[in-house]
Amino acid sequence: MKVTLSALDTYESSFTPLVVIELAQDVKEETKEWLKNRIIAKKKDGGAQLLFRPLLNKYEKETLENQNLYLVGASKIRLLLGAEAVGLVKECNDNTMRAFTYGTRQNFKGFDDNNDDFLTMAECQFIIKHELENLRAKDEKMIPGYPQAKLYPGKSLLRRLLTSGIVIQVFPLHDNEALKKLEDTWYTRLALKYQPIDNIRGYFGETIALYFGFLEYFTFALIPMAVIGLPYYLFVWEDYDKYVIFASFNLIWSTVILEVWKRGCANMTYRWGTLVMKRQFEEPRPGFHGVLGVNSITGREEPLYPSYKRQLRIYLVSLPFVCLCLYFSLYVMMIYFDLEIWALGLHENSGSEWTSVLLYVPSIIYAIVIEIMNRLYRYAAEFLTSWENHRLESAYQNHLILKVLVFFYNTILYHLLKILFCLLHNCIYAMVLLISFSLATLLITSQILNQIVESLLPYWLQKKHGVRVKRKVQALKADIDATLYEQVILEKEMGTYMGTFDDYLELFLQFGYVSLFSCVYPLAAAFAVLNNFTEVNSDALKMCRVFKRPFSEPSASIGVWQLAFETMSVISVVTNCALIGMSPQVNAVFPESKTDLILIVVAVEHALLALKFILAFAIPDKPRHIQVKLARLEFESLEALKQQVRATVLKNECISLANDRKHNSEESLTAFTSALKLPV
Amino acid sequence: MKVTLSALDTYESSFTPLVVIELAQDVKEETKEWLKNRIIAKKKDGGAQLLFRPLLNKYEKETLENQNLYLVGASKIRLLLGAEAVGLVKECNDNTMRAFTYGTRQNFKGFDDNNDDFLTMAECQFIIKHELENLRAKDEKMIPGYPQAKLYPGKSLLRRLLTSGIVIQVFPLHDNEALKKLEDTWYTRLALKYQPIDNIRGYFGETIALYFGFLEYFTFALIPMAVIGLPYYLFVWEDYDKYVIFASFNLIWSTVILEVWKRGCANMTYRWGTLVMKRQFEEPRPGFHGVLGVNSITGREEPLYPSYKRQLRIYLVSLPFVCLCLYFSLYVMMIYFDLEIWALGLHENSGSEWTSVLLYVPSIIYAIVIEIMNRLYRYAAEFLTSWENHRLESAYQNHLILKVLVFFYNTILYHLLKILFCLLHNCIYAMVLLISFSLATLLITSQILNQIVESLLPYWLQKKHGVRVKRKVQALKADIDATLYEQVILEKEMGTYMGTFDDYLELFLQFGYVSLFSCVYPLAAAFAVLNNFTEVNSDALKMCRVFKRPFSEPSASIGVWQLAFETMSVISVVTNCALIGMSPQVNAVFPESKTDLILIVVAVEHALLALKFILAFAIPDKPRHIQVKLARLEFESLEALKQQVRATVLKNECISLANDRKHNSEESLTAFTSALKLPV
Repeated sequence: MKVTLSALDTYESSFTPLVVIELAQDVKEETKEWLKNRIIAKKKDGGAQLLFRPLLNKYEKETLENQNLYLVGASKIRLLLGAEAVGLVKECNDNTMRAFTYGTRQNFKGFDDNNDDFLTMAECQFIIKHELENLRAKDEKMIPGYPQAKLYPGKSLLRRLLTSGIVIQVFPLHDNEALKKLEDTWYTRLALKYQPIDNIRGYFGETIALYFGFLEYFTFALIPMAVIGLPYYLFVWEDYDKYVIFASFNLIWSTVILEVWKRGCANMTYRWGTLVMKRQFEEPRPGFHGVLGVNSITGREEPLYPSYKRQLRIYLVSLPFVCLCLYFSLYVMMIYFDLEIWALGLHENSGSEWTSVLLYVPSIIYAIVIEIMNRLYRYAAEFLTSWENHRLESAYQNHLILKVLVFFYNTILYHLLKILFCLLHNCIYAMVLLISFSLATLLITSQILNQIVESLLPYWLQKKHGVRVKRKVQALKADIDATLYEQVILEKEMGTYMGTFDDYLELFLQFGYVSLFSCVYPLAAAFAVLNNFTEVNSDALKMCRVFKRPFSEPSASIGVWQLAFETMSVISVVTNCALIGMSPQVNAVFPESKTDLILIVVAVEHALLALKFILAFAIPDKPRHIQVKLARLEFESLEALKQQVRATVLKNECISLANDRKHNSEESLTAFTSALKLPV
Repeated sequence: MKVTLSALDTYESSFTPLVVIELAQDVKEETKEWLKNRIIAKKKDGGAQLLFRPLLNKYEKETLENQNLYLVGASKIRLLLGAEAVGLVKECNDNTMRAFTYGTRQNFKGFDDNNDDFLTMAECQFIIKHELENLRAKDEKMIPGYPQAKLYPGKSLLRRLLTSGIVIQVFPLHDNEALKKLEDTWYTRLALKYQPIDNIRGYFGETIALYFGFLEYFTFALIPMAVIGLPYYLFVWEDYDKYVIFASFNLIWSTVILEVWKRGCANMTYRWGTLVMKRQFEEPRPGFHGVLGVNSITGREEPLYPSYKRQLRIYLVSLPFVCLCLYFSLYVMMIYFDLEIWALGLHENSGSEWTSVLLYVPSIIYAIVIEIMNRLYRYAAEFLTSWENHRLESAYQNHLILKVLVFFYNTILYHLLKILFCLLHNCIYAMVLLISFSLATLLITSQILNQIVESLLPYWLQKKHGVRVKRKVQALKADIDATLYEQVILEKEMGTYMGTFDDYLELFLQFGYVSLFSCVYPLAAAFAVLNNFTEVNSDALKMCRVFKRPFSEPSASIGVWQLAFETMSVISVVTNCALIGMSPQVNAVFPESKTDLILIVVAVEHALLALKFILAFAIPDKPRHIQVKLARLEFESLEALKQQVRATVLKNECISLANDRKHNSEESLTAFTSALKLPV
């Protein structure tokens, strides 16, 4: 029989805490009561129908601090119904990937009414997060007890609670046993093995698993470049054919690895079900606001925001703002070059020790100014993107990343101009080499330093803090579930993982150095490989031990990063050709005619670009077997739609027939079901 | 109640002839009988279940010639079931576009059991063609009476009959009344109005309607270019800024019109239902062969051909062949330039009248050689593409067009090299201008001449022939349906329309001239507009009066032509920048440093290319409201799939319940239908 949400009991004896909500210290009782009621209320009454209890019961509260921590869980059936609501896709017994529905749960592989393993803990926490975030205001005008925290119909309650500081944070709990198992197969092993991507996905969700998958893939993909670059660096070849071969290899390599990644990624996400998951049909992201209305695609009631308004905001505000910032940063760069020229002139005129120190001043000032500008710009970009009011989390992320990346292309421009500058001011080519060398070395050593600052140091601090907390809890000797209490207290103090943005950005800059300046600095790839092998481990340590567990986030690909890497590889064709054209070896081949040289370089560059686009076009984005499976799903759903419409027509016919002739309704049932031709 | 094919009667009193089959004169009676039986046989017996009768009955045959013409028609219900089989998409009463099914026919707009207007005549003929082409061999080893015409299970009968010369042709009949009406609103009108695209689609089908739609759109899109080009040509500006402005406008214009066309095209084809039509789920094209098996997407029995074999054929045979041909044609081009240099040298040395004539000889020889090579190559391309064995007609067309177009880019290269050649051999820039001018003028006058040769002349001949046939038929005074007889006799002699390839190619070359050489020859657009205004009318005349009616072919876009035009517009950025860089006005600005000039031109070109890609990326391919409707369809079908699986589970539960408790089955029917939650 069909189980509906209303039949569900909100209280269950086996309460598994999944998510922690931390309230501010001074929250009024009235507000707490209201929040509790909204969370445990039935779905049909506008609640989330979850389980909710304080970390400490009344008796314990008197003896301990931290009275403002609450645990959220859900019954098993509630989670399964939630999985249906968020549109989780699972593998069926016939090996197809299908959207999970509670009614057809027996059809899914690994489902068993007595087994709790069907949904991973990460999925359960994602479902709870989704339900909490989609708890929206009905007729409340404000949060009870806080008249300044205004509400309007459709506003996400959790978001308002967070922005008004009533809720301090919401985070999922670690599962220490599973974490230990994951760690054993992941980073504590010494043997060089592939990462357990599927297990990472089970524990941290698809977005993070895709990051680690990409990191690993990218590292292995860099190895050929590193191997080729090494002898290149050691024996400085004077033959200019070699340069062209290296650049062509670099170009084909960067195109092919990005295309192959797309295919590998489709393979993985199909297995995980996220490739088939239709996130655009889901409920909007919590930050999304608008007038309550009916979504014209899904027919559900949700906030609506006209897309032309978003377009206007993007094209009339965000785009001009980004352009203005770009212009401003270019202006600053020009000032820097002016300063540089001035310092150079001064040094040449006087030539003292003092002026040679002065030579470094413009670069240092520029580095500081640019760092400040980058930070300011990033805040502005976040504000603007959230103001653009995107309906989907993925759209929000993509627009944010695009905005930030535009600015990072400036860095590349800076390096290119710097090289050009050296050439124009008669610095020798070796100096360019030196600059790039120092820059790249700096970048990679800074990345390695970063690892220590980001992972090892906090890990050590964390460990010390953990011992202190443990001692404190043991000293209390209160009659409470000490393990859980200790875990919550520890985890609530941990840092929050801010998403994969910075991690991808690091890889992106690496890719930039390897592909843009590979001719000038062939060692970049080797350094990047070395860095990434330790990066995997330090990032893993960071995820498992330093940060709070992040909420899992289903995703089907690395999103706009794919575009960013592809754009970078197009730019790399241009810069590689330019660098080769400027190299003294190549210039030696055309001693008298510089025009011929430039024309040939431009022609080669165009041919390479054309080859690149043809390659990208010719390699299909998804492997053939995935294409077939997706086509089959589409075909089946279109057929089902036809069947559904036909069934309606037939049902009406059958019912009228039964009514008219008053004949045996058993007959009409048989006629009906056989007419439906339902698959058995 | 459900009407199935088996319940259909093959004989119907009202026989509307739709398609004519012409057999060879000497076909054996045995073969005729077999063919007739296969065509009228029930679907379940492997037949096409169509109506089939000779044009002349036995009595008439004795008095008249043309005894080998047969008419094919179909009953109304057969056509509706056929429409379901080919997957026609029609508008429902609730304004959504849905795949037509016979069971839900009452839901569709304009459907009436007593009305024949629901399917257009073009659709009926498409259905009949589809059914005839998918009449496949079962256990026949050969065509009866022709042991040399081998058959194997799954082979299309009609195709074998055509290749063995037993069937001479299959063509649909014109509908003179509808044709007259169409003509009145189309090309015989004098006022400048838009074409009746929807009516053209109703009569000739989507592919041809899209061609005329594109022709019209393209003509209007050319007007701004023509208007800007005209004063440009009349007052030769010396200001080089103007050149850059013109080139930039040209670039943005060509990008925007192609993007806007995509949106307009999606708008049209959504209204026609072909955008939603899933042609990849249909039966394969008749030329497709393979081992009979089960299609893993649709689950239907059809010939299968592994895609890796096709890939191997494409990459190991077709691609090398095309490259070889390209190399060969480039080689010929080089020989031509050598000849040209030789002739030029001879002329300079002697300088007589005789040698100045000799100057034209290489060009003439080259033109002839290239024309012959083009024709040979096209045959080879057709053979190779059909040998690649594509499953879908669209894939076949796209691969063929791609192959042929690669060769046409040679022509462009030729013109570019010619200009470069003139520059290198110190011809003045004016000469380049003159050459381009004469070439473009030649092209456009040749197109106008073409119109006369292609349309007006055959039309006049056709008319004369028509009068002769009429007189002959009237002289017979036999007791037959003279109108039909006359029509069939007349139409069978008409030429066959070979598809839209040549028509698109003409537009493509025009677009090439307008966008590639616009700076050098700004009048090209104006000439193209003039040509296209008459082209619309002459093409319309050709379609209606000169050629046999073509079978309609559903299509959702102009296919690979979109890609071809886009590629051309990318190339045009490169050539425009190059031409501007070479112009004497621009060269005058940089009198001493040619290097600076080239670097600036290259930088501008890269910026323009980047702008172009950003523009193409930022303009969505489909208008917002179509995106919403398509998303809604996808959402509904996925929901229906869930419902279908759930219904199966529930049905089993209900039936077991009914059996167990032996309770009133009326109750279980209600429970079942309510559980299904079928929309009413």
